[in-house]
Amino acid sequence: MELHEKIFELALNRSIFMPSNEVYGSVSGFYDYGPIGFQIKKNLEELWRRKFIVEEGFLELQGTVVTPEIVLKASGHVDEFTDPVVSCNKCGVKVRADHLVEKELKVKWDMKLESLDKLIRDNRINCPSCGGELSDAYNTNLMFETGIGADYAKAFLRPETAQGIFTSFPRVFRNQGAKLPLAVGQIGRSFRNEISPRKGLVRMREFTQMELEYFFNPSKPEFEGFDESKEKKLRMVKRGEEEPAWITGEELVAQGIANQIMAYFLLKEWEYYVDAGLNPEKMWFRHLEEEETPHYSKSNVDLEVESSYGVVEVAGNAYRTDYDLSRHQKFSGKDLRVFLQEEGEKLLPHVVEVSMGTDRMLFCLLEHAFREKSEGKEWEWFDLPPAVAPYEVAVFPLMKKPELRSPAKEIALGLREEGINTQFSSVGSIGKRYARADEAGIPYCVTVDYQTLEDDTITIRFRNDGKQERVKKCELYSKIKKYKKEGKFSA
Amino acid sequence: MELHEKIFELALNRSIFMPSNEVYGSVSGFYDYGPIGFQIKKNLEELWRRKFIVEEGFLELQGTVVTPEIVLKASGHVDEFTDPVVSCNKCGVKVRADHLVEKELKVKWDMKLESLDKLIRDNRINCPSCGGELSDAYNTNLMFETGIGADYAKAFLRPETAQGIFTSFPRVFRNQGAKLPLAVGQIGRSFRNEISPRKGLVRMREFTQMELEYFFNPSKPEFEGFDESKEKKLRMVKRGEEEPAWITGEELVAQGIANQIMAYFLLKEWEYYVDAGLNPEKMWFRHLEEEETPHYSKSNVDLEVESSYGVVEVAGNAYRTDYDLSRHQKFSGKDLRVFLQEEGEKLLPHVVEVSMGTDRMLFCLLEHAFREKSEGKEWEWFDLPPAVAPYEVAVFPLMKKPELRSPAKEIALGLREEGINTQFSSVGSIGKRYARADEAGIPYCVTVDYQTLEDDTITIRFRNDGKQERVKKCELYSKIKKYKKEGKFSA
Repeated sequence: MELHEKIFELALNRSIFMPSNEVYGSVSGFYDYGPIGFQIKKNLEELWRRKFIVEEGFLELQGTVVTPEIVLKASGHVDEFTDPVVSCNKCGVKVRADHLVEKELKVKWDMKLESLDKLIRDNRINCPSCGGELSDAYNTNLMFETGIGADYAKAFLRPETAQGIFTSFPRVFRNQGAKLPLAVGQIGRSFRNEISPRKGLVRMREFTQMELEYFFNPSKPEFEGFDESKEKKLRMVKRGEEEPAWITGEELVAQGIANQIMAYFLLKEWEYYVDAGLNPEKMWFRHLEEEETPHYSKSNVDLEVESSYGVVEVAGNAYRTDYDLSRHQKFSGKDLRVFLQEEGEKLLPHVVEVSMGTDRMLFCLLEHAFREKSEGKEWEWFDLPPAVAPYEVAVFPLMKKPELRSPAKEIALGLREEGINTQFSSVGSIGKRYARADEAGIPYCVTVDYQTLEDDTITIRFRNDGKQERVKKCELYSKIKKYKKEGKFSA
Repeated sequence: MELHEKIFELALNRSIFMPSNEVYGSVSGFYDYGPIGFQIKKNLEELWRRKFIVEEGFLELQGTVVTPEIVLKASGHVDEFTDPVVSCNKCGVKVRADHLVEKELKVKWDMKLESLDKLIRDNRINCPSCGGELSDAYNTNLMFETGIGADYAKAFLRPETAQGIFTSFPRVFRNQGAKLPLAVGQIGRSFRNEISPRKGLVRMREFTQMELEYFFNPSKPEFEGFDESKEKKLRMVKRGEEEPAWITGEELVAQGIANQIMAYFLLKEWEYYVDAGLNPEKMWFRHLEEEETPHYSKSNVDLEVESSYGVVEVAGNAYRTDYDLSRHQKFSGKDLRVFLQEEGEKLLPHVVEVSMGTDRMLFCLLEHAFREKSEGKEWEWFDLPPAVAPYEVAVFPLMKKPELRSPAKEIALGLREEGINTQFSSVGSIGKRYARADEAGIPYCVTVDYQTLEDDTITIRFRNDGKQERVKKCELYSKIKKYKKEGKFSA
C-alpha cells in the first residue's frame, strides 16, 4: 500500500477528510474536512495569520468567490487558464492531452497544441479507455462558469484569491493613508474545474489558498526588518542545478534570485513550514528557470515538497512587477496609479506575491508526520506539533463515572480558559481513548483517576512514548506550557 | 440620511466593507470585507465557535461550496428554492413579482403564482421601469448553477451550509462512536442568486452562515445541561401576539414552543447576540405561525432585529425532525438509519437546527453600535464590545520617533503574546490616530510618550469618553484584562 493510500484510509476512519456528499458516491476533486481535519486546517491557517499578518502588522481582507467575467479577462484567466484536452471519437471520453503524451512517451510537452497532435499521430496513441481514435487537442478553460442575476451575466468562481486583493487595492490604499509599502493577505476558497483530478488533496477542484500581496515602490525594493533575518537559511534548488543547497537571505539578494522583500518572505515561509511540522529534509525552494517564468515576472520561486505522489508544489512566490494592476487599469479604464506624497511621484506599485495552498500542505504534513506501529504502540499515529495538532491536550476521566467526569470537565474548561485547545472525552475505554488521541496527533493526554480525588494529582501522558507523569493539578497549566515550548513529547 | 446610508459611507471610508471588484463598478449583492470589517467578522465567528462548538464540546467540519444537483434535489432546493418573477414585454427588465405587488398594493402574497397574475392584471400594474406590459409570473430558481468536469455535470453553489452536514452525517456518526446526541456545526459561504438584491449586507448574493445541526434520538428530546439554564430569559413574540415579552427556557418548554434542546439553544443564542453587542431592546425571537412553518417542522423560531431597513431576520431555528436525512435516504438509496447499541434500536435521528447569518448580524451590529458626534468627540464612532471590536487595543508611540516607536512596538508584541488582539500604528498625528481607533470601535488606546522613557508609565485611553489614565507598564496587561471583564470603557 502506498503511503497516500494509507493516509486516505486513516483520514476516512478518523474524520480527517472524506469525499464530499459521500452518501451519493464521490465526485472526484471535492473533499470535506471532518472534525479532526478541520481543526488541523484551522490551525495551519491561524499559524499563517500569526506569522504573515499579525506579526508583521499587515492587513487581511475577505473577498467574494463569484467574480464577473471582466475581472478574469483582465487577469488573463479567461484566455490563458486552460488545459489541453483530447476526446475520443468513439467513446467520447475526455482526457488531458499533455498527461497522456507524458505518460505514454515520457516526454515533457513544449506547451504548443500542434506538438500534442503531432506526438499523438506519430506515435499512434489511442483512447486509453476504449482504444478509439482521438480528436485534435483543444484548450478547455479551467474555471467554473456561472451567471449573476435574472439575466445570468457571465461570471466565474475565482481561480485564485489574489485578484480580489488587486481590485480592492485602490480603496484600501487610500483608506490606509496612501502610503507604500502596503501588504494585504487573504485566506479563502478557490476553484479549478480540473478535467480528471486525481491525487486526493493534491489536486482538488475546490481548495483553500493563503495569499499575500506586498505592494511597494519599485525604486525601493528594501524590506525594513531584513537585516535581522538575512543570516537565516533555507534550502533551494538554484537555476541549472539539480540538488537543493542551503542559502542565506543575504546570498539570495546578492545572487539576484530575489530582492530583499522576496528574500524576507522566503525565509519566513521556510520557518512557517518547519513550524507547521513539515520535514525540512523533504522540502526545498526551486528558483524557476527563465523559460518557466511568466514574461512579466522578475523571479518565481516555488516550494516543493516530497510526497508519495511525487514532488508537490505547495507554494509559489513571484515578483509580479506591476502586471496585475496594469491589467486592471487597462480593463477598468481607471487610473490605478497612486500618488506618493513623500516622494512626489505617481506610479503603479510593484507586487511580491506569496501564494500557498492549504490543502496540499495539510496532505504533505500528514505524510511527513505519519508514524508506523511500533513497540509499545499498536496503532499508527501522527507526530504533529502542538500548534497544528487538532487539539493540544485531551482530558479524560479514567472511567465514565460522575465523580471523575465532573473534575475532568473542570480541568478541560480551565485549560480552554488559558487558551489551550482542549478536547474532552469520556466515551470508550481509556486505552481506546489514548489510541484515538495518538491517531489524531494530540501531544498530551490528561487523565483524572481515583487518586486525583485523594491527592489532587493527575497524569500527563506523552504521545510519542505513551509514558505518563503524575503532577499536581495546580501545576498542569505551567507544565503543559513548558513542555510545548521545549517540544517535549516523550516522558 | 438614513442610518444605513451613513453606515455604508463609514464602511467605505474605514475599510469595513465595500462593493466587490469596485474598480469595475459594483455588481449588486457582492461585498468584500476590508481590513477592519474582516476583523469584526472573524471575531463574530470566533465568538460563535467558542459558544456553540468549544464550550459544548461539539464538532465542526468544513464542506464544499460546489454541490452536485442530486444533493439539492433531495434537499428540495432544485424544485422549491424559487422566487416569482415577471418580465416586461417591452423593455425586458425582470422584477420580483411579489415585491412589486406588495409595494404597489400593500398586500401580502399568498404564495400562489396565479394570485400574482390576478393582482397584476386586476390592478393594471405595469413595468416599474418603462411602464410596459408585464408577462405572467414565473418561478426562477435562486441557486447559482455551474457544471463539473469536461462534461459539465450539473451542479450548484450551495444555498446553505447545512446540507453538507447532513450528507456527511453517516460517516461522522460512525467515527464518533455511533452515539446520539451528536452535534455538528459549520461556518462557510453560501450563495443565492437574488433577482435584484438591495439593502447592502442584508440581502447578499454571497454570504456567510454559521449553522449547527443537533442530531438526537426523537424519544429523548432532553438536553443534559438544560436544568442550569432553564431560568434564563429571552424576549419572544409568541404565536398570535404582536409584541415581544420575556420568557424563560422552562416556559418555552412548558408552553410547547420548543423542546429542551431547542430551548437551550435559543437561550444560548440570545446570550451570543447580547455578548456580540446587539441591543437587546431592538431584538426578539418570533415563534412562526403554523402557516409559516414548513410541513416537516415541529417549530420554527426566527431571531428578528430592528434596523433602518426595517426588521431583519438574522437567525432561524427549526426542529426539522428527520426530514433532511429521510430525503437524503430516499435520493441516495442508502439506509441512513443509525443503530443505537444502548437502546437496541435503528432509527433516523431528529435534528434541531440553529442557522445564523454572519453578514446581517454584522450589519445590524454596526447600526446598533453607531454613535453620533458629541461633546468632546468630533467624529462618529462604534461602541463595540472588546470581543468583537476589530482590535481590543491600539498601541501608539506619541510621535514617529525611534526612541518612542521601539518601546511601543515591544508593548504591542507583549500584548499579542498575552492573547490580546492588538493594533500598532505610528502613522499620522496622535489625535488622528485616536479618532481612527474610535471610528473602528477599538476600546483601548495605549500611548508611549517621553514620560514613558523616564518612569516606565504609559497611558490607557478609554474609547467612550476619550479620557486617559496613566499606569505602570508592568500593570498594563492586568489592567486591560480587568477593564475588559468589567466592561469599563470610560475613565
